[in-house]
Amino acid sequence: MIVDCLQYSKPSRERFLEWQAGRVGCVHVTLAVWETARETLSVIGQWNDLFAENADLVALARTAEEIQAIAASGRTAVVFGFQNTAPLEDDIRLVQVFHDLGVRIVQLTYNTQNSIAAGCWENEDSGLSTHVGRQFVRELNQVGMLIDLSHCSERTCLDTIEASSAPVAVTHANPIEFVGSEVELGRRPKSTEVLNALVARGGVVGLSPYVRMLKNGIHTTEQEFVDMISWSVDKFGAEHVALGTDFYTGYGIEAVKWWRMGRWGRESPFPIDEQAPVVEWPAWFTSPEAFPSMVAAMEKSGFGTTELDLVLGGNWIRLFGEVFDRQTP
Amino acid sequence: MIVDCLQYSKPSRERFLEWQAGRVGCVHVTLAVWETARETLSVIGQWNDLFAENADLVALARTAEEIQAIAASGRTAVVFGFQNTAPLEDDIRLVQVFHDLGVRIVQLTYNTQNSIAAGCWENEDSGLSTHVGRQFVRELNQVGMLIDLSHCSERTCLDTIEASSAPVAVTHANPIEFVGSEVELGRRPKSTEVLNALVARGGVVGLSPYVRMLKNGIHTTEQEFVDMISWSVDKFGAEHVALGTDFYTGYGIEAVKWWRMGRWGRESPFPIDEQAPVVEWPAWFTSPEAFPSMVAAMEKSGFGTTELDLVLGGNWIRLFGEVFDRQTP
Repeated sequence: MIVDCLQYSKPSRERFLEWQAGRVGCVHVTLAVWETARETLSVIGQWNDLFAENADLVALARTAEEIQAIAASGRTAVVFGFQNTAPLEDDIRLVQVFHDLGVRIVQLTYNTQNSIAAGCWENEDSGLSTHVGRQFVRELNQVGMLIDLSHCSERTCLDTIEASSAPVAVTHANPIEFVGSEVELGRRPKSTEVLNALVARGGVVGLSPYVRMLKNGIHTTEQEFVDMISWSVDKFGAEHVALGTDFYTGYGIEAVKWWRMGRWGRESPFPIDEQAPVVEWPAWFTSPEAFPSMVAAMEKSGFGTTELDLVLGGNWIRLFGEVFDRQTP
Repeated sequence: MIVDCLQYSKPSRERFLEWQAGRVGCVHVTLAVWETARETLSVIGQWNDLFAENADLVALARTAEEIQAIAASGRTAVVFGFQNTAPLEDDIRLVQVFHDLGVRIVQLTYNTQNSIAAGCWENEDSGLSTHVGRQFVRELNQVGMLIDLSHCSERTCLDTIEASSAPVAVTHANPIEFVGSEVELGRRPKSTEVLNALVARGGVVGLSPYVRMLKNGIHTTEQEFVDMISWSVDKFGAEHVALGTDFYTGYGIEAVKWWRMGRWGRESPFPIDEQAPVVEWPAWFTSPEAFPSMVAAMEKSGFGTTELDLVLGGNWIRLFGEVFDRQTP
């Protein structure tokens, strides 16, 4: 089963049909980046409509078992996640409230500093904050939310891996040691120190064909992407490497401005080229329909069945099972 | 004229009568600490009622000139302030919205880390944040809001004094060099380095008889408080030292819990003694009615008329004039 541990496309039946064509059993989708609690409730309402209208293709999953049952029925299981703690609005009791609504994965911050943690765009990196950050990590652990560190700073990653009583995830980022530190302005790729600490505690990293995190950008070949998977498996272990494509489509320039600076900025920290396409994907991964080709390339590169099962989905299912089901009521 | 650049009592006619008895011409009051934008609108609504019901005693002031006119009429001018950026909810355009509603003073953070800055309770101090913090400082400058650094970290103070194009304030804190660094767990007193940088840019510090920031706590005498004013005037200049008592009354233990941890915590970072009084004041300052006695003690200690005028109110009026009136529409 293929689990893609992050996509952020504008949701529609067209996308769900691509998931089916790509034999994707589970997708972790993003409900919110800068959205408030109230706005996020409406996003959940829109998803509820989509589930009702597309019950032949998709269903919400709240546990690892539900994911497996939905995938076994030939549909795609959707796992709700936040790419920021903005919807929690510094109210620790909203962790349980959003868990009750199906949210299972929460990234501590999206690029910039917030009350909980430093993001990867900060020049001064104070990591997980002393009071708010540490109390929220404990709450997320207790409620059964998987903590995602993808857009967090180096030190936030190290602090959180240490502070968390449950294993954590980097749902969508590539290793600096493989792709180089210069591929992306925003310091998104993860250091070997972070990834070693992550896997030592049972965490999983999802690799991405997002061109701003690939060594050769838009020119990266499918074989070079598979080489990054092989390298990562050799370096960090087949039980800890998986997929998180970061795939998205369907947005205009306004969405890019929203992601970059929410409502907090009048100027984007990085220039936005209004003429350029919102996003470009390598020719061999222009939609999730491309997964079977990627799997074939992995088989050709020597991945055995056990390794394939782990990397394509087994590692995420194992981690989801450990975290989502440890809820202490 | 006496300007008290922070009080946080539960507002009522009884308090306004104390202001009149104490000959207080202007008080900077706190509308919000952890309150959301919506909650803060209701607080403003409650103040509007109080202004209508007590028009013989108080009125809202939006400029330095309005403060002087209200005080000249024998009433007390109220300046609205926030002790946190929580009501701005990471929306940079809410700075102007709350300015339109009369808010003129904004503290960047209240003790803990937020998206804008590190507070004085953080163990790791990254100062003003790279993106959100710097954009908000620019916005506050442009809109004509006075930035308050009282509960901010050392580095947030230094970064903000440097980044701000307008002079800034420490509305209520005492000098570490005079009171010692051990008087308060929460690192509230300000270092000489911060106060020197503040005054070099035209800022003002308000001294407070809050017992947790006094060298001899509850046993501090009025003369010892006056000695701190004298010492501060000698050290930082009569144009930069003023009063910000932090006086508050009228609350129960629930308010203490709210101030300590808003909605973000399940545990207070510092133990709360539920049996102890919410707050205690030195015997010579149990209400703003005590100001005339304090003024007499200052005169007895050798303060001249010019110095007295500056320290009691002139410095705040000068700073308010420079900041509130520089609004660029």
